[in-house]
Amino acid sequence: MIIKNLDSISKIAVKMQGAEKVTKQLVIGKSDETPKMSLRVFTIEPGGNTPFHSHNYEHLNYIISGKGAILDDDGKENPVENGNFVLILPNEKHQFKNLSETEDFVFMCLVDKEFE
Amino acid sequence: MIIKNLDSISKIAVKMQGAEKVTKQLVIGKSDETPKMSLRVFTIEPGGNTPFHSHNYEHLNYIISGKGAILDDDGKENPVENGNFVLILPNEKHQFKNLSETEDFVFMCLVDKEFE
Repeated sequence: MIIKNLDSISKIAVKMQGAEKVTKQLVIGKSDETPKMSLRVFTIEPGGNTPFHSHNYEHLNYIISGKGAILDDDGKENPVENGNFVLILPNEKHQFKNLSETEDFVFMCLVDKEFE
Repeated sequence: MIIKNLDSISKIAVKMQGAEKVTKQLVIGKSDETPKMSLRVFTIEPGGNTPFHSHNYEHLNYIISGKGAILDDDGKENPVENGNFVLILPNEKHQFKNLSETEDFVFMCLVDKEFE
């Protein structure tokens, strides 16, 4: 059994094209010998966003804090906040963005460990 | 894309032997056409606990609210609260219990959808 919290996990800047003011924490993954799943936490600073992109695998999300939106395939902004659970299916285009001018937008992202 | 919150998801009593005062919400799973992973939320009322058991698959957990403990293989109580992330590896014996006399203990549990 492994128990962690975010304070102990380093933040890595996300360099992917289209990512602005985003960091990633690899909370649980391959290095913990998890057989299948990896859990990452992304933090988007005010004014930031992930790329508007798609990929051939699903992810499950949980909003930890802040106020944000997820753009869907049609470019529609879907507001999300703490307590929302999200499923992005394979090949669905999406983008997470921070809607607050002052507060970080923090969310969990679960993927197959192959894509951690 | 699917966005949900817990209010919209029915709670089902967990009848497994050894489970006391536990309900389950199937937040995201097979019925959402998720290819690989399922996300459940368990609520343990004061005085309750999950079975002290093991299984041949991993799960990842996140503590949403309340104060609880996880018993490990050795029967040691590991306290957990909001913000803790947990990995239970395959075949590790474990039990979640509520340590509060007044407040529910609520946590997320992610598994391969085969075991949802």
